[in-house]
Amino acid sequence: MEYAIGLMSGTSLDGIDVALVEIKPDDLTFYRLHDFISVPLTLEMKQSIKEALAPETSDVRQLCSLNFELGYLFADAVKTLCDKHGLATASLNFIASHGQTVYHLPDALPGLIPSTLQIGESSVIAEMTGTMVVSDFRYRDMAANGQGAPIVPFSEYILYRTENTQRILQNIGGISNATIIPAGASLEQVLAFDTGPGNMIIDELCRHFYQTEYDADGAYAAAGQVNQALLATFMSHPFIQKVGPKTTGREEFGQQYVEELLQTFPNVSANDWLHTATLFTAKAISTSLAPLIEGQCELIVGGGGSYNATLIAMLQAELPNVKVMIQEDLGHSSEAKEAMAMVVLGHHTLHRLPSNVPSATGASHPVILGKVTY
Amino acid sequence: MEYAIGLMSGTSLDGIDVALVEIKPDDLTFYRLHDFISVPLTLEMKQSIKEALAPETSDVRQLCSLNFELGYLFADAVKTLCDKHGLATASLNFIASHGQTVYHLPDALPGLIPSTLQIGESSVIAEMTGTMVVSDFRYRDMAANGQGAPIVPFSEYILYRTENTQRILQNIGGISNATIIPAGASLEQVLAFDTGPGNMIIDELCRHFYQTEYDADGAYAAAGQVNQALLATFMSHPFIQKVGPKTTGREEFGQQYVEELLQTFPNVSANDWLHTATLFTAKAISTSLAPLIEGQCELIVGGGGSYNATLIAMLQAELPNVKVMIQEDLGHSSEAKEAMAMVVLGHHTLHRLPSNVPSATGASHPVILGKVTY
Repeated sequence: MEYAIGLMSGTSLDGIDVALVEIKPDDLTFYRLHDFISVPLTLEMKQSIKEALAPETSDVRQLCSLNFELGYLFADAVKTLCDKHGLATASLNFIASHGQTVYHLPDALPGLIPSTLQIGESSVIAEMTGTMVVSDFRYRDMAANGQGAPIVPFSEYILYRTENTQRILQNIGGISNATIIPAGASLEQVLAFDTGPGNMIIDELCRHFYQTEYDADGAYAAAGQVNQALLATFMSHPFIQKVGPKTTGREEFGQQYVEELLQTFPNVSANDWLHTATLFTAKAISTSLAPLIEGQCELIVGGGGSYNATLIAMLQAELPNVKVMIQEDLGHSSEAKEAMAMVVLGHHTLHRLPSNVPSATGASHPVILGKVTY
Repeated sequence: MEYAIGLMSGTSLDGIDVALVEIKPDDLTFYRLHDFISVPLTLEMKQSIKEALAPETSDVRQLCSLNFELGYLFADAVKTLCDKHGLATASLNFIASHGQTVYHLPDALPGLIPSTLQIGESSVIAEMTGTMVVSDFRYRDMAANGQGAPIVPFSEYILYRTENTQRILQNIGGISNATIIPAGASLEQVLAFDTGPGNMIIDELCRHFYQTEYDADGAYAAAGQVNQALLATFMSHPFIQKVGPKTTGREEFGQQYVEELLQTFPNVSANDWLHTATLFTAKAISTSLAPLIEGQCELIVGGGGSYNATLIAMLQAELPNVKVMIQEDLGHSSEAKEAMAMVVLGHHTLHRLPSNVPSATGASHPVILGKVTY
């Protein structure tokens, strides 16, 4: 058995995700997660990255240095996971590193062209581990007029596609988004789009009513009841009314949105709020998906929202003809999903095969993603 | 015959150097310059790059966009030269791109680690030309504790090494530097170091006395005579006294240095100044090289200084046992040298062979330079 490692460092700065994946060098369909760790970033490093993210506080010298610093951190993260398994880093088949996004500009602005910037120097990772590195996966899709995102749908296609069942990969993070893989689909038939708010309204209400970060297991929501007037107001949101592939941002369902609604409905109880908001979250997803469901269908939920049992139950109720599952039901891991996706992309790069999904990113054609550092 | 293109964009912002080079895909010693152009940068682009170079005026958003903008410019430069020869860009064997250095930090500073940053997105070049790109040549050497510079000595070793003659590649730009390739040398025996001021004192004096940018053909110097007191003062410069491999910067022989000397020697005529400064420039080089000359030796001068006939004649007089030549005497081109060097480096990268010169950069061991974008 050979191993590859996938590295992901998200914009939430939660830490460096490291997935150790079993691969077969010449088999582009076999990927089995062997282990996963998330290496936390120090407060100092989080601060450095935050400064690098903002035009106001960033500069070329700091970015020059931080690119190398993150390279060393990523290499250390690889070593940590390899050490745990008694593996020499140089024995890995390859490392696939997403890098830390410090800027992403999908659309032109005055004086600026569509572009993206990830840092975490691949040459440093290659040098410190003695292993070939594939990196910089978003650039080529943007060069082909794509948005450089999402880049996970390709690995979802490789890992989840079946001949006879439509599968929908439903990610529920702060916002929610879905990848639809028709039964027996070719890559061109894969769709990916946002499906509305994820946990962000629920989390905001938990902070407001309970000073907690989230509704563990959906317990508060389960203890409440639906408020029809509030639900109707939620459902009048322009995002729900939009037809066809949609995109949304944190600002549409953020703190300001929730605070305004709280003022409009001052007499609804905390748990009714949470029940109704959770139901709205489920309905936002189900109304986005419903027109696209075909025949036998499995909805596989990942992300933090997959651990909200009330939300999952509501989703199942809204989509009675769909089998609703979570990643763990299939032996996968929500946490490791993105880092593992890097391995799938990197492996295709090394075989000089495309791995963007033009129907998801808007790219004009399939392209080979990434750069190889020997 | 197959072709590769080398791209170089120097810190002087003179333009984008593009070298079309004949190669044999499986022969790592054959490189023949076919044509060379330098594509000027617009004033607007020069201004953007200057802003990106300085910590005070740079930011992450601008660097994100400029990385892509330069990628498109580099791709256009490739197309321009290919069009001239009726070549399809996709027919090139590969493109090797140095990129625009926006920061180079060979030594740590408080809060910053040794690092380097070149931009000009390789994914954009690959996408726009339909050809594989090798880029980012300096990073890996720095990851191996090298200075990431100089990177030209390897190509000099490949292109100029002979079995029976020691060859010294003497570059005379603003400052001067040399690569010494012993007869029958292995790569480990190659030395590279700074040899003192190049044209910068001469140019500064031309601006002072004649409001011209340089001494064309060395005509002013040829019309003057040596002033021994001034020469003695020049020769007392600490750089000349230093023994062993040296480095120098523009600040050591810059405007301030010249202005102070002008005040000390107010009665020396303009042409005597230029004659003496040119002689000093030659002596700085010859005293650096003399202890290292062995047997039959050819000194091959490149850079702007190679067109200063007085300087070349003085160099020959200072080194009577050495055959002093200029690049053009060997059928090479000073202008195309760095862009052509990229082709040599890129070709070695594609064959997964090292191309740094640890004895020149200080790297702990030979490493494969660059990243490959398919």
